[in-house]
Order: sequence, then structure tokens, then C-alpha cells
Amino acid sequence: MKMILKGGTLVTAAEMFRADILIEGEKIAMIGTDLPISEDTQVVDVSNRLILPGGVDPHTHFDLPMFGTVSSDDHYTGHKAAAFGGTTTVIDFVPLEDEGIEKSVALWREKADPKAAIDFSFHMNISRLDAQIQAEIPYLAGMGITSLKVFSAYNNRLRLSDENIFRVMRIARDLGFLTMLHAENGDVIELLIAEALAAGHTTPEWHALTRPAWTAVEAVLRGAALAAMAEAPLYIVHMNAAGEVDQLAYARDRGLPVMGETCPQYLFFTIDHLRRPDGAKWVCSPPMRTTEDNERLWQGLEKGILQVVGTDHCPFFFDGTKAILYEGQPVAIPGKELGKKDFTKIPNGLPAIGDRLPVLWSEGVASGRLTPSQFVALTSTNPAKIFGLYPRKGSLMPGADADIVVWDARRVVEYGVAKSHHRTDYNLFEGWTLTGFPEKVFLRGNLIVDGDQWLGKAGMGRFVQRSSHNPVL
Amino acid sequence: MKMILKGGTLVTAAEMFRADILIEGEKIAMIGTDLPISEDTQVVDVSNRLILPGGVDPHTHFDLPMFGTVSSDDHYTGHKAAAFGGTTTVIDFVPLEDEGIEKSVALWREKADPKAAIDFSFHMNISRLDAQIQAEIPYLAGMGITSLKVFSAYNNRLRLSDENIFRVMRIARDLGFLTMLHAENGDVIELLIAEALAAGHTTPEWHALTRPAWTAVEAVLRGAALAAMAEAPLYIVHMNAAGEVDQLAYARDRGLPVMGETCPQYLFFTIDHLRRPDGAKWVCSPPMRTTEDNERLWQGLEKGILQVVGTDHCPFFFDGTKAILYEGQPVAIPGKELGKKDFTKIPNGLPAIGDRLPVLWSEGVASGRLTPSQFVALTSTNPAKIFGLYPRKGSLMPGADADIVVWDARRVVEYGVAKSHHRTDYNLFEGWTLTGFPEKVFLRGNLIVDGDQWLGKAGMGRFVQRSSHNPVL
Amino acid sequence: MKMILKGGTLVTAAEMFRADILIEGEKIAMIGTDLPISEDTQVVDVSNRLILPGGVDPHTHFDLPMFGTVSSDDHYTGHKAAAFGGTTTVIDFVPLEDEGIEKSVALWREKADPKAAIDFSFHMNISRLDAQIQAEIPYLAGMGITSLKVFSAYNNRLRLSDENIFRVMRIARDLGFLTMLHAENGDVIELLIAEALAAGHTTPEWHALTRPAWTAVEAVLRGAALAAMAEAPLYIVHMNAAGEVDQLAYARDRGLPVMGETCPQYLFFTIDHLRRPDGAKWVCSPPMRTTEDNERLWQGLEKGILQVVGTDHCPFFFDGTKAILYEGQPVAIPGKELGKKDFTKIPNGLPAIGDRLPVLWSEGVASGRLTPSQFVALTSTNPAKIFGLYPRKGSLMPGADADIVVWDARRVVEYGVAKSHHRTDYNLFEGWTLTGFPEKVFLRGNLIVDGDQWLGKAGMGRFVQRSSHNPVL
Amino acid sequence: MKMILKGGTLVTAAEMFRADILIEGEKIAMIGTDLPISEDTQVVDVSNRLILPGGVDPHTHFDLPMFGTVSSDDHYTGHKAAAFGGTTTVIDFVPLEDEGIEKSVALWREKADPKAAIDFSFHMNISRLDAQIQAEIPYLAGMGITSLKVFSAYNNRLRLSDENIFRVMRIARDLGFLTMLHAENGDVIELLIAEALAAGHTTPEWHALTRPAWTAVEAVLRGAALAAMAEAPLYIVHMNAAGEVDQLAYARDRGLPVMGETCPQYLFFTIDHLRRPDGAKWVCSPPMRTTEDNERLWQGLEKGILQVVGTDHCPFFFDGTKAILYEGQPVAIPGKELGKKDFTKIPNGLPAIGDRLPVLWSEGVASGRLTPSQFVALTSTNPAKIFGLYPRKGSLMPGADADIVVWDARRVVEYGVAKSHHRTDYNLFEGWTLTGFPEKVFLRGNLIVDGDQWLGKAGMGRFVQRSSHNPVL
Repeated sequence: MKMILKGGTLVTAAEMFRADILIEGEKIAMIGTDLPISEDTQVVDVSNRLILPGGVDPHTHFDLPMFGTVSSDDHYTGHKAAAFGGTTTVIDFVPLEDEGIEKSVALWREKADPKAAIDFSFHMNISRLDAQIQAEIPYLAGMGITSLKVFSAYNNRLRLSDENIFRVMRIARDLGFLTMLHAENGDVIELLIAEALAAGHTTPEWHALTRPAWTAVEAVLRGAALAAMAEAPLYIVHMNAAGEVDQLAYARDRGLPVMGETCPQYLFFTIDHLRRPDGAKWVCSPPMRTTEDNERLWQGLEKGILQVVGTDHCPFFFDGTKAILYEGQPVAIPGKELGKKDFTKIPNGLPAIGDRLPVLWSEGVASGRLTPSQFVALTSTNPAKIFGLYPRKGSLMPGADADIVVWDARRVVEYGVAKSHHRTDYNLFEGWTLTGFPEKVFLRGNLIVDGDQWLGKAGMGRFVQRSSHNPVL
Repeated sequence: MKMILKGGTLVTAAEMFRADILIEGEKIAMIGTDLPISEDTQVVDVSNRLILPGGVDPHTHFDLPMFGTVSSDDHYTGHKAAAFGGTTTVIDFVPLEDEGIEKSVALWREKADPKAAIDFSFHMNISRLDAQIQAEIPYLAGMGITSLKVFSAYNNRLRLSDENIFRVMRIARDLGFLTMLHAENGDVIELLIAEALAAGHTTPEWHALTRPAWTAVEAVLRGAALAAMAEAPLYIVHMNAAGEVDQLAYARDRGLPVMGETCPQYLFFTIDHLRRPDGAKWVCSPPMRTTEDNERLWQGLEKGILQVVGTDHCPFFFDGTKAILYEGQPVAIPGKELGKKDFTKIPNGLPAIGDRLPVLWSEGVASGRLTPSQFVALTSTNPAKIFGLYPRKGSLMPGADADIVVWDARRVVEYGVAKSHHRTDYNLFEGWTLTGFPEKVFLRGNLIVDGDQWLGKAGMGRFVQRSSHNPVL
Repeated sequence: MKMILKGGTLVTAAEMFRADILIEGEKIAMIGTDLPISEDTQVVDVSNRLILPGGVDPHTHFDLPMFGTVSSDDHYTGHKAAAFGGTTTVIDFVPLEDEGIEKSVALWREKADPKAAIDFSFHMNISRLDAQIQAEIPYLAGMGITSLKVFSAYNNRLRLSDENIFRVMRIARDLGFLTMLHAENGDVIELLIAEALAAGHTTPEWHALTRPAWTAVEAVLRGAALAAMAEAPLYIVHMNAAGEVDQLAYARDRGLPVMGETCPQYLFFTIDHLRRPDGAKWVCSPPMRTTEDNERLWQGLEKGILQVVGTDHCPFFFDGTKAILYEGQPVAIPGKELGKKDFTKIPNGLPAIGDRLPVLWSEGVASGRLTPSQFVALTSTNPAKIFGLYPRKGSLMPGADADIVVWDARRVVEYGVAKSHHRTDYNLFEGWTLTGFPEKVFLRGNLIVDGDQWLGKAGMGRFVQRSSHNPVL
Repeated sequence: MKMILKGGTLVTAAEMFRADILIEGEKIAMIGTDLPISEDTQVVDVSNRLILPGGVDPHTHFDLPMFGTVSSDDHYTGHKAAAFGGTTTVIDFVPLEDEGIEKSVALWREKADPKAAIDFSFHMNISRLDAQIQAEIPYLAGMGITSLKVFSAYNNRLRLSDENIFRVMRIARDLGFLTMLHAENGDVIELLIAEALAAGHTTPEWHALTRPAWTAVEAVLRGAALAAMAEAPLYIVHMNAAGEVDQLAYARDRGLPVMGETCPQYLFFTIDHLRRPDGAKWVCSPPMRTTEDNERLWQGLEKGILQVVGTDHCPFFFDGTKAILYEGQPVAIPGKELGKKDFTKIPNGLPAIGDRLPVLWSEGVASGRLTPSQFVALTSTNPAKIFGLYPRKGSLMPGADADIVVWDARRVVEYGVAKSHHRTDYNLFEGWTLTGFPEKVFLRGNLIVDGDQWLGKAGMGRFVQRSSHNPVL
């Protein structure tokens, strides 16, 4: 199969130029100014459109058990929403089961493989570090999993001690893996939560009040310091506070190999949203903060202090007692209502994967804060490079997978739950008017989204082996 | 008893002016340009001399058991050395015994009271935080002890968890106490020490290599973050690394109530000193670092990022198998030789209390980096204010205790162990030529040092009740 | 004559303590806790009051010809207003006449000497630099004038070229003088003014729009760079923009001997005040800017980036066609109305000298941003030191002139033109409620202000010889 | 003509990937993984080689009269040296003649057109601004010249007043042109030079001592401030001092549209080189400074504070009394010896154009400080974008001119005058061992350099029309 996308303007992480693009099978074969059209070549007119590499979202949680329920997008519905939003590769986190790494990965593959509608990979959560786990980590390279996630919060559940975080970093360094850190001070948070509950504070706002920004800020420098001493690269997930950006800049200015990710929700929302009657919609960890934090995160993106915009997509129904129609079927999954009387029981997480590109384009590029090339870098090329997917993913260059988004920069969309395709009953950007939207999305040369039409299907997505020893951006 | 110091130039934390000073009993009664001299007034000619408030050293460890031996200065010999160096008030740390705070303080008073030769107070180490300890802390106010020391290093010995450090800060805040933090990351240090020993590394240099600067840098921001969230003031002891100064500046620029102390040893020495054959002399915690760290600490003093120069005085013999003569008697106390084959067995600490003023004056003031007023602020007025001793201590103003140093700014001294009066067998500044030295030292109006002559005696020193709710400088 | 101020709390630039103060003749003779009271000693009860050194305002323009009129306070009325506001020493600028320095100073002395009601000194404007002027500068030392003022704005009037500013700095350095810089880019300003007028823009707002903050910001760094190369100290007058504070901090962080002054008006007002119908009241140069600039200037004071709060007092009537009563006589002096139709004809300047201490105390100290000691440093001790008046002025120590303000920190005053004693018809702080106000003011031991009563008189004020080679703070 | 470069790895400003590249005529037509090879296609094996877009040097001075002689590379020899060093486009500065802009450009075209061996464009020096010049500037757009150069140094020769620089910036802004600034304080420099000469200082070192770094640092902020007020983009040429980088960062952090260039000489050399017996070789303006400045400039490149590495290529013979052989002919052009007895008569400038890419690669990329993509950005893509040459130049993308360098990253070259092809008798990098070197260079599809062989010829180079309204990077 050959296809030419004709007449578009290609956007890479550094350039923007008019060119045609030839897809052969699953790959980009050529780009040129006037590509020859053979008989067997399908020509798609993309004039007046931008051509972007498919988005890479390195931070998702599909089908994740939590608080007696499960995140409401599984590896099919989440992939589909991702695709509608212009994302063609996701990296999901594998919870560490008692049986160990190999078993945990196998289990997650079982859940994901039959459902996958776009390409995907996994990160491995290292939420304990005993002899078995240490022994198993090296096998991950063979599974194509080259990143380890650690937590400095969630005492007695996910948290590792500083000692073990440091150990993981050194193991990762030796294997060419990347360590990812959820940076919050678990000690303070657990104490504040206990006190808040004891004082009868139950509303969503207390989710933020019990996780102050300083818990995150210090944990970022702590992580960077551990990385410095381990001589290992580090990636800070879901950065959310101005001080975190300050500390990341401090670490990078001193030459430390530390990188950072933020997510759309942290660019726009604040604790005031948690104070709304439907504040539970905004409950995720870390929490929403202030407009000053929003602003500093934007600066972090503009100046290259942060390298990636991911999502931490982990949606729940706002009201899981009421069914919605999904692909024609009624679906209801217990959600935020579980915490109506106790903010600690509100499932943590929110829908974002489909919103990422349209919202960031509209508020970032169309508003003039970011160039199209910065947008491509932040949402596709950088995460692909950092996580060992490049140049197969994150690139429009010959040899890359033909994961392509035809982007209509002039399309104006009234956005919201109806447009976002997440399997949940709300969207944080409900009612926003967005300028710029995906028009067509190709996964390895296959058209899977065409305007509002879904052409993909479960099982199309492939698990992608990732490489190790990738650049620190 | 009345005495007039006539013809000197008084130096306060902000001013320098010619004036006479009248001492009545233990207090400064008047300062004036031409004080009337009654018959019963002794007149001391101090023309061509500077008059400084007696030094306040808020960081000493006298008679401290460690590694099977004890710091070689007790509350008498240490006080005497302090006095010879121009210091008239010290604050020593009370180790927390199993029996609890009250018992620990009583024990430390028993050791100190009969020996004290200058005025003194205590800080309370909070090295565990159980119900008893929490219950006892408030009683400290009544004992005149208004500062609590916590450690983020020395796992399983002195360290508190972040949770408990945070709890201590809040307790301190409510009582108007000040929390003091030994800021190092215990987890990393313990691991590196174990690895170094396993690898057969035994030399003093490894004391520094197993305590990298980043362990201290992150712990400073962690401490500041905890203080921010506890809304409590914090004092970082013995700051030693450039990055610590950076992080203290960061915290203070954001309005956090955090203060910092450094000590003479961190201004001059580096890991290279630990590499000398007699490197054990420089073993203390935190360790010596680099010339860049020295320089940044100086900047911290010059710009007011740091508020205090203390000492962490905790001397040990370099060779405790050989006796020295002390007040005519041979004395030998096991010391650094205990760690000849294992750096972890070298007692941690070094002599400094007598060196503090002469060395800082010579290298700071005589060299032009600090003004005389900055010197007085850093070594006397600031620690007096911070620790609730002001205006009784740290001031030359009427009403203050007549703790006075007559300073000869032109005296040149070949410094070293012979001059420093510490009860140990070495001095870090051996052979240095210092410009500026105490000539007379008065404790509450009593002349205790006159040139090289010791006029003080054990028991003269009084325990000083300190106040709470003091300013954050 | 002997007088004791009994029971007050003395505030110095670093300390605060209870003490009595003995004045003998014109000098402070003693301070003590319980000063002996002889028969010939008058005792003034100042219990519950603070005792401050009299304010030193290093930036005034009395009786200054401008735009066909003259600043409405002369050396008597301005001094009187200063005294009511707690200021006992002022330094006025001598315009450079065609006849040269000696003649210019003589002329200014003629105007000031018979009227002076508080102590005063002069700065010399160097608004041209020819051979005569260069030859005359050294004589200024003998006249007790040790500071030179230069301008980088007001092309063809006051401005010196960079070359000549540099020359002045080197001359000043060699003489131990201090160079003071009015920092704005004259080139841009002249052009913008011409364009604004050509475009028919005549309102006061255009005074600010034609003097953008960047003209000041770059001129500060330019001045600092010239000072660096001249190896000469520099004092930037009337700092007004956030970027100026940034650049001053940059220069000082690199060790340059540069200091800065701001004035009350720049701490509170913005271009919005110029947009009011009575906006002409706020016309001075440099102009009012934004709330961000106000805030950064406050930070500059708090952190010690700026050393002095002066006033640039240079009042004009808002409506000089209507007489006011001054000491019972009607007075009308042409003022702001001259520029009703053309902002460039509005006399530049505003009343401030009486406001300085009460406003800074109320908004700075009573609000908690500054300590009383910082207040004393910024308004008295620092300018006294910087300009060679210390320790005669700016100090409460024995030997100093008995220039003393008895400050009632609890007095609440409805402030405004009626309270401020300036000879003009308006006050910028009209209607403000101030907490803290001078109660008594002594000039060299003479009570010149007692509550609302004026006890001073013309001719009491003395010209003060200033020293050279003063410290860079 | 069709040619395929087969098997190389393409390096763009953001990516690196294996692909073939098809050149048709003068253009890049396609890039692809396995491009079809027709009969008329020449295939060049570039396996194991990197493929870079031809270098763009935006800062050259060919055939420039100075001090009674002329820069020793003309538009042919300089172009040839550029080509050997991997540069295929240059932008030369047109001196402004008395007859005005049009005439000046015409004259420069006359000199350049017949000699040009690579593509070229011009910047226009605006060294005076009268009515004629203002009237002529707009015509430059039609000539394809969209950048204006101004000087704040060289009083009475090249310097414009701040007013006129500001005017130029506004004219440039309105036309979509870019203003370029030579940033030094001419006033101070002229004075210091006069004084140095008067004091009998004649050696090359005094060239640096009379142009202190602060003259450049303040002028950078001054330029940025003028740009801010003119709302116009600015490009600072040949940045050379640490403080300049600081100030550029300051300006950019505040959102100002200011960009910066450095040159190889400022990354490696210091005033110590001027102190060598052959110090005159290093005389250029601004001068060499210190290793701290070198280091900060490197940081500026690494962190993206600086956008471009140019050269300011302006060579002179070190000893113009001795002929060298150039293309077989003896050539001698008066040079540095003119200033043997007077540093102000040493022609200012040095050879660099051929060194730029090899030296920056070896010391920047091979050493690990810069990525290959950063190298391409700094030397080709960024200057092409900034100066309106993109995407015709600076890109490997289809549609771009086929200006291509085949780079052998493993080639080790003993570098020096023999290798550099400049028409002069010395090279600053004499004896350096460089890793990485151009192997083949194509200009619009024509092979002009093949190893050590020169295949280009005079007249091949074309004047390139540049566009206006280009991005601020």
C-alpha cells in the first residue's frame, strides 16, 4: 500500500516546510516537494493542513484498580480517545503485583494486548525493592520496558525510601533505564490527611490542602540530588508547582540529568476548581494549585525547562451511578461519588488523554506562547526520544512509523465531553472553544480517525519495544 | 563595683563610635563620651582598642560521649578556651537519654554547672518523638530552653522521620521555640558508608566521599519546606555546601522563616585536607568540601544569607595515646586514633571554639570581606537575638550583661594549639598568622582573660534562661 | 544645659533597648539604664515612646527655579516641614551656574543660611565638565561638600555624556567623593516627548509614557558599569522601577560599589494616578510606574538591595493661582497649572519631605514589612554613613549630635496637607490613616517640634561639613 | 541532474535519522529510506557519514578597507575558505559610503558578484542617519537586504547615538527588518585608548585593556532596552563577555525579542593570548577576555541563551611584508605589522570562517557539550531563520537549496593555516587536533569541495534575496 499526503506543511521539532509525504506500508518512505505518483498510490489532499507526528503520551493509567473501582478507560476506550485527540502512542504504568515484575507485566499485557487500538508500551512501577525485584529488573530490557517509576509519597503503599529510590536509580543507570519520580513528601501528606479527617474536613478542597506545594517542591530537589549522586538520569512526572519548575531549573543549570513533565490540567486549573460543587472532577494527585503555578509551568514549557506534556490520564465517572452511552451501550462505573463524604475516598485521577493536543495547541500555539515546533517537541518528539521510541515514533522522517496527524489549525471546536471520546461522564474543558484540531489520524499508515469517524479497532495497537540509553534532553 | 572602660571604640552590629563604657556590678550601666569618674570607679584604659560584645557560640558539644570516648573539652576546659577566644556565652546540646527530657537536662546541668566558667544555655536534642517526649517538651520553656534540635541523618540513632521533624516544628512554633536542623540525607549516607567499608575503603577521605554535598543541599530545602508548611521558624546548623547557601537564599527570597549558621572550618578547608596523612583531624560531620563551597559560604556571610557563625566545637585528640599537659597535669583522652583502620570509627568533631573570633576577624575583617559590625552581628548579636538571649547578651547597650571583649585589631599572633587553649593536641589553624586578637575578656563585669592570663574559674559561669518568640533574622 | 530623655526605647540600625539618654548642650553625652539626675538636668518622660535618631534626607530641592517658577518650599519652609516629619538633616542639590562651582555654592549658601531651620549640607550638580569645573571640584572638599550629582537625561541641559560621567566618577574616586546618578536615557525620552507633543498628547499621563521604565533600567546598569570601570562608588538616586532593582542587585552581587535610593512616592503610586483629573500632582521625574514596580522596590528595601529612602522633595502648588495661608500669610506660587495644556510645562516635582518617616513607618514598620531598625537604617543611619555625616548624624550614640525624634508608635493620624506642613496646596497621602508619628523633635538638643507646635526658627540650622572616603554599604 | 546521497545520517536542528537524499538540479527534492534510483541519477555513497545543511555564517567582512590596508580575504578567497569549512552561505556587511545606501550596496555587489564562490547576502551598516539614509532604507527590502547594523562604539566613525539607534530600530520594525548591534560603550573606550597611548602603552594587550567587558555588558542591556521600547527585534553580534550572556538572559526572560551571536574566538581565547609575542594575531573588536567569559559563552550556547555562532571573519596577515603562496601566486597584504608600535594601528580582525564548523564540532559536539542537532541549529538553521534565508537555506528538507555538507565525524585533522584555506599567514587554532571534518560540500547541488580538492569557482555564488518579518528565536 502506498499513500501520498499531498500539499501539507510538515512540522517537526525544529522546522516547518511544505512537502509531500509518501507512506509505504506502515512506514514513512519519502518526503519530497513533488513526489512521483504511481498508479498504486493513493493521494490524500492535505493542502492547507499541518502534518504532525502522532502524539506520544508517556503517562497513562488505563483499567487501573483504585479505591474499589477502576479507571473508566480501558486499553481500548482510552486508546480510542487518545487517537481522536491526535495521540498514537501511549506508555502505561504497570502496577507491581505480589508475584513480581514478570508476572505483573504479563498480566498487564493480557489486559492491554487484545484491546489496544494504538501503539503502546509500559513503564514498570517499583513500589517495593526486595531481592526478587532487584533480580527481575534486568529482564525488563528484554521486554522492551526501559523505565522504572518510583514514588516518594503514598507511605505504606507505593512509596520507596530514599535509600531504595537511590538504589533503583543506580540499577536503572547501569541498565540504561530511566527512573521516573512521583515527587511528593509522603510523610507530611499522610499526617495532614489524618488531621483533616479527624477535624471533619471532607470536601474535595481538602485533597489539595493536605498536599501542599512545598511537599512537591522539596521532593523534586531531593530526587534531583539522588540522581546527581547516583549519576543517573531522572524524569519528574506531572510537575504542578512553580517551585518545582524553579528547582528543576536549578538542577539543570548545575548540569544534572533531570527532566520534567507537566500535564494539561496543571496549566489551567487551581484549587478554586476543587471548591466548586463538582470539585471532585478535579481530584487527582498532585492537586491543582494556583494561577501563579499555572503561569510558571507555562514558562517552563516556553523556556525548555520542562521537556514533555503528558497527561496522567486516569478518568473516573463523576457520577458512576448513572450510565452513559458508550459505542451505543450503557456504561456505568463507580467513580468520584465514592468520596462524596470523604475526600480520601474520591478516586484520584481525571480524563485528559484526548484533550492534550487540542487544548495545548489552542491555548499554547494559537495564543502565541509556543511555536508549532515546540508543540511537536513537547507532545511527540521529546517523549519519543526520552523513552527510547525515537526515531520510530515522534518523527515524520523517512523510516519512522507512519503515525501522522493531519492538523487543521483553523478548525474551531466547541469542546467538551461529547467531543473528547473518553469513557466518562465529564470533561474538564467543557464548553471551551478550541482553535485547531486533528482532522485525520494515521497509525502506521492506517487511517484510524477521519474527522469524527472512528476507523480503528481493538487489537490494532502493538506493544512497542523500547530501547535503552537514550538522550537526556 | 564600678569600672569604666575608657577611650575605646565600641562596635555594635550596625555602628562604630568612640565612647566610654561604665560597668556597674554585672551590667553595662552607661555609655558616654566623657563619663564622670567617681572615687569608687576603676578605670581601664582601652584607647586604641575596639570594644565588642562577648561572643555567643550557639553550637558546642562539651563532654560528649562518642564512639567509646568523649569530646576532650568538658564544660570547664571548653569554656576557658571559649573565653580566650573572646566568647562569653555558649549553648550546648543535650543528648536525649532514655529517661526523657527532664532527666536528660538534669544530667547535663549536673555535668555543666560545677564546671561552667562562662555563661551557658542548652538546646534539647529531639532524637526520638514518642508520647513522653511530646509531653515533656513544653516544660523546657520553664527550664529556659527554647530550641529543639532534630536530625535528618544518622538513621536508627539520631534521625527523626520527616513526619516527626514536621511535628517537632509545629510543637516548637506553638511554644515560640526554634527548631534547629542537622540537614543531611541519612539514607544515602548510610548506604554509601556500608558500600565503602565493604569495598575496603577506610581512610578519612571516605568520610567525605560517603557524605556528598547533595545530601546536605536537598535536606536544606526539605527542612525549609517542612518549616514553610509548619509555619515555623527554622535554623540550619553548620552549613557547609554552596548549594545549601543557594537553597537557603531561595527559601528566604520566598519569605520563609529560615536562618543559617556556618562554622569556621567550612570557610577554609576542603576534602584535600582529609587526604593528608593527618586527615583525621578534619573529620567532622558534615565533612569538608571544596574551595567553591568555601567561597559561596563567604558570600553567604557577606550578603546576609547566613546569619550566624558558630563552631560545632567537639574536639578529640588526634593521638589520644599521648598525654598533653593541661593546667600542668598530663591528660590523654582516646581520640582520632580510634579510627585509624576505619574512618567510621574516627570520632566526629574538631576543636574550634577558641578559633572562631580570631580566625574570622583576621580572614574576614582584616581582609576586608566583612565589616567589624558584620563580624559582631554574626558572632554575637545575631545568635543572641535568634536564641532568646538578647538584649542580655550580644549587646553593648546599657542594661546588657557586661560581657565585653577588648579587641586589639593590630595584634599579630602566630596561632596554633599553644594559643588556642583547647584541651586537645592539635589545632586546624596551626601556623596561621592572625591579625586581631582579644586582649581582655569580661564576663558580667569580671575580668576573666587578661592577655594570656586566665582569671576565670570553674563555677563562675551561669545557666542563662532563654526567652521564646524571638525574631527571625 | 542638660536633659535626660527618660524611659524610652532606643532604636538603632541594629538594636532596640530600653535606656535613658543624656543630652549635654548639643550632643548626646550618655546613654544608660538609670542615669543620675543632677539638679541642673531637665527630665523629659518618654516612657512608652521610641527614640530614633533624627531623619537624614539626602535628596531635596528647596527654592529651585524651574519652568519659570520655583519650588514652593524654600530653605525655611522645607526645613520646617522636614522637622515636623522627624527629619533633622537634609542635603540639597546646588545647581551649577555659569560662573562655576564656587560661585554656585556661595549663591546657594546665601539662600539657605539665613533660612535654615534644621542642619543641612549640599551636593554639587555637575551638569557640565569643562576645564574650570574640573579645576574647581577639589575645592568642594574644603567646603564640606563630598558628593557630585550627574545626569544621563535632560539632553542639552543637565546631561553629561558617558565620557564625562566616567571622568567625574574618577575625579570623585580620587577625592573620596561619591558620585550620584540620575539614571534615565535622555535620548529616548527627548524623542518620545517631541513625538508626543507633535501628536497632540498633552495630559500628565504622557509624562510617564514618554519616560519608559527601560530608560531607567538600562541607565542603572550603564552607571554601574561606568563605576566598575572607574573603580568608584556610585549612588543611584530615586530608583523607581523593578528592573532598576534587578540591575542594582546584579551589580552588587558582582561586588560593584553601587548603592541605591528610592523615595516614598515610588512605593505607592502608579501611572494610574497620573491619569486622574488632578494627575499633575504626581508629575515628577522619573515618573510613577506600576504596582509591580512598587512591590519590587519594597523587596529592595526589605532585602537590603536599596540602602536609602530619600524624598526628591521638590513641591509645587497644584493650583498656584489660589493663595493658601502659610504662617498666617497668604501665599501663591505658580505651579502645576503652568502645564495644563502641555505636560512638558508642568513643573516636575512633588512634596514629600514631611511624609517620608510617617508614611514609611506606617506602611513599612506597622505593617510588618520592615523592622524598626531597618527603618532607622534606611532613613537615618545609612544616609548619614554614605554621605559622610556619621557618626555626627544618624546615630543615638554618645558623641553624636542630639538630633532625636521621640516617636509615638501608637499615634494614629489622619494625614494630609493640613498635617504635613509643606508650603503647597496638596499632599499625595491626603486622607491616609497613618499609625506612628513624631511626638517631639530635637535638633542638637533643642526641642524644635513638640506635637503640633513649631518651636524652631529660621537660622537655627547649620551647614554641616561632610567627610570624604565613606563606606559603601 | 539528479543525485542521491545514499546511506548517510541526516542531522537537522532537532533530529537525526538515516535517510537518503535526492537532489534535483539545485534543490533537495526528496528524502527517503530507500529512494528509487533512475538511470539518470548519480549515486554518492555517504554511508557512515553525517549529512548537514550547509553552514550559514551571518557575520563576515571580505575585502574590507581598514587602517590603510584591506582584510586579506576577498569575496572569492573568503568564500572558498568558507566552503572548505562547510559553510555555503555568508552575509557580509556593506560599509555605508558618503553617496548613500543604494550606491554603497551597488559598490559592494560589484566587488562581490564576480568573485562569489558560495551564496551570499548583505547586511547594511547604518553608520549615520540623516534624511537621505532614512529615505533609502525601505529600498533595501527590494534589494533583498533585510537587516541593519548599528554601532554603539567607534565614536565619530561608525557610532550612532542612542536616539538614532532607537530610530533605526523603529524603522526596521516597521519594515520587518532586523537590527544588529555592535554593543560596546564607545565613550569609555575612546577615553581609555587616548589615555593608554598618552601613557606610552602600545602592546596588543592594551587593545583589550582599553575595551573592558563592562563596556560590552552595559551596551547589551542598553540595546535590549531600546529594542523593548521600540518594540523591535534585536540581534547582538559577537558576544564575548559573561555579563553579556547574563544580560541577554535577563532580557529574554522578560520576553524581549533579543537574540545573540558569539564567534569561535570568544569561546577559546583570553587576554593572555594578546600578551604573547604574536598577540596581534588575536586583535579584534571586541577583544578576548577571560576563561570565565569563555565558559559562560559555552553555557549560553548549551542553554539556548545564544542562538548563533558566526565568525566576524576579517583576516589580516600577521606579517604582511612576507608573501605567501595562494593558488600558486605570491600574495602579501599589509596586516598586523602596521600596529607593531601602536596597538591602535593593528588592523582589527582575524581569520575564522573556515574554522567555525570544524572547531565547534570538535570542541563542542565531540566533547559532549552540544548535540549534533544543536550544532546544526547554531551554525545553520538558526541564522537562516533569523535572517530570512529559511527554508531555502539552513535546512535539509525537500524544497531547500541543496547546500549540503557530508561530515566525517571520525576524521582527525591536524589543523592550522595549511588546512584552513584562509588567505592569510596564520591560524588561531594552529596545531589543534580536531575530530570531525567536512568531506564533501555541495552548493545548490554542485560539489564544490571534495576532501582537499576545490571544485568551486568565482562567480558560482549567487546573491540571495532575503525575506523580512522573520521569527525571533
